Amino acid sequence: MKVSELGEFGLIDVLAGMVDQSRRDGLPSWQDLIIGIGDDCAAWRARPGEVQLGKIDALFEHVHFTLGTATWRELGWKALAINLSDIAAMGGLPRYAFVNLALPETTEVEHVKDLYRGMIELAEKFGVAIAGGNISRAREVSIVVAVSGVGQEERLMTRAAARPGDQIAVTGAVGGAAGGLRMLMQRLDFDAAATDALRTAFLTPWPRIIEGRVLVEAGVRCAIDISDGLVADLRHICEMSRVGARLDVDAVPVPPAVRTGFPNDWREMGLEGGEDYELLFAAPPDIMDRVNQALTCPVTVIGEITAEGPGEVRPVTRQGKPFRLAATGWDHFKKSNTKGS
Amino acid sequence: MKVSELGEFGLIDVLAGMVDQSRRDGLPSWQDLIIGIGDDCAAWRARPGEVQLGKIDALFEHVHFTLGTATWRELGWKALAINLSDIAAMGGLPRYAFVNLALPETTEVEHVKDLYRGMIELAEKFGVAIAGGNISRAREVSIVVAVSGVGQEERLMTRAAARPGDQIAVTGAVGGAAGGLRMLMQRLDFDAAATDALRTAFLTPWPRIIEGRVLVEAGVRCAIDISDGLVADLRHICEMSRVGARLDVDAVPVPPAVRTGFPNDWREMGLEGGEDYELLFAAPPDIMDRVNQALTCPVTVIGEITAEGPGEVRPVTRQGKPFRLAATGWDHFKKSNTKGS
Repeated sequence: MKVSELGEFGLIDVLAGMVDQSRRDGLPSWQDLIIGIGDDCAAWRARPGEVQLGKIDALFEHVHFTLGTATWRELGWKALAINLSDIAAMGGLPRYAFVNLALPETTEVEHVKDLYRGMIELAEKFGVAIAGGNISRAREVSIVVAVSGVGQEERLMTRAAARPGDQIAVTGAVGGAAGGLRMLMQRLDFDAAATDALRTAFLTPWPRIIEGRVLVEAGVRCAIDISDGLVADLRHICEMSRVGARLDVDAVPVPPAVRTGFPNDWREMGLEGGEDYELLFAAPPDIMDRVNQALTCPVTVIGEITAEGPGEVRPVTRQGKPFRLAATGWDHFKKSNTKGS
Repeated sequence: MKVSELGEFGLIDVLAGMVDQSRRDGLPSWQDLIIGIGDDCAAWRARPGEVQLGKIDALFEHVHFTLGTATWRELGWKALAINLSDIAAMGGLPRYAFVNLALPETTEVEHVKDLYRGMIELAEKFGVAIAGGNISRAREVSIVVAVSGVGQEERLMTRAAARPGDQIAVTGAVGGAAGGLRMLMQRLDFDAAATDALRTAFLTPWPRIIEGRVLVEAGVRCAIDISDGLVADLRHICEMSRVGARLDVDAVPVPPAVRTGFPNDWREMGLEGGEDYELLFAAPPDIMDRVNQALTCPVTVIGEITAEGPGEVRPVTRQGKPFRLAATGWDHFKKSNTKGS
């Protein structure tokens, strides 16, 4: 069987199963490991009460970006941002980044410096130290970043902590990254403000580190960052928490530039676009009230966790009617993928 | 300027300089960072007396391997081994691994499972937990692994701790990996024992974790693992320690299979072949005596650290005559590279 038949998530399940078989609880590594494969980050015990967080993620040319549409500075920013976002989704603080850079030998040194400028620019905003790296020759550009961070053992946000009756909410708005991608790939012409908003959403997303901390302080214990798409990532929560979710599609906040620029597709972009790196989280109503008072960014309640239909997301309209989804989010090995390729 | 003109190490210097400019000592990340870019691993303070170690390294198809000569199991083993070796060179213990796998969509699932089998096989030997990963589509196979480990703050082995009068020694033998690579690329025919020894040296190297711990216990404070080549890696020590080195080329231990199989080139393979993942270290003679008694693997003294010629390696024959080197080790962007491509 080819990986294209099994799909990205099927393959991850197979490999995670093999790793799980190799678990030896008597060893220090396994003993200290609180969260392994399957959440936004891995977490293991370090100082008393403190956990170390670890994550690896990547941008590959022709899959995640093309050099014709993204600047090198933007690539550096984004390669780090997508990792910081995972630390944010656990409620942690990022500390150290490790960068594996693969480059054709004809790459301009100035371009590589621009890439590092973008990465350093973001690193400085969150006090991240780039502590190591590796450079390899390759036919195509790729940037793999591993990030280490810290969190509080008793207050980590995981995908597995949603409970029936929790409200589901999202920070900011979703669909902007999908709009930005489509704008760049199809060379669409929008006004300056919309162009800027969409490009920023796709190429220089802002990791919700501060917001993640606020959520933790308010008592939220279930979160994920939106990388695969709102519905797909909500499904990850449902699967890991063994709960269902009612998703009010009309409540999902989509940016004006997307609604205006893509009048036929904006709803789908918001629900399934992916790469927005907003935080999607679930909490009881009283905690959600506290979150609303504490956060300075927009927060929108978009549904409820239910006991029915574990593992399933049920999108409904304002009138309570079932809403039919077009696709099921990004899968690296499925044919529907067109991102940048 | 292209990266091919600047070279891998020139590019690393430029990027490390940019990162160094971004250092802000008041921040927790920078404050806790003991060793950043430039050594085998980064190290930062965690529990009292204990440091966390971090490292990222990669195998790229057509650069580090070809699928025609390496099995998937071997690739999985090696991708982890080269990282564990860096932890060994600091005298640390590896704990967690993060794996970024890039695959064409036509890859067989069974091959990916074999890759994980090889990685898990090695992970189990050293109690490493594979704690996270990421899978991406790509035109060529690549495996980027980040490893986190632990070490003792006051007893880390670094590249910067060599002192004039130290003896220079190496574990095991060098040149086997270069011999294995040449055997595979040129389809050379050796007897079963030699074939096995050379293939193992190149594709399933054994990380010297235990030996690294023994060195630390014996009092060694300067080490590096041999990835770029014996001379190149000794030069890294000389540069970081601001010392010179006399290298007795006739003392360098090269495996019998390499001497027999490559009668004209075995010496060069030992000196400059790279990827042997042996430990190269420097220590005063009394500590070297302790090392010799404590280690069960072969240890060979191959030279001496000198005050003269800081940053320089001076290879000499048994008669004390200067020995002329052919090349200067592996550089990812220089033309001489033929590894697997």
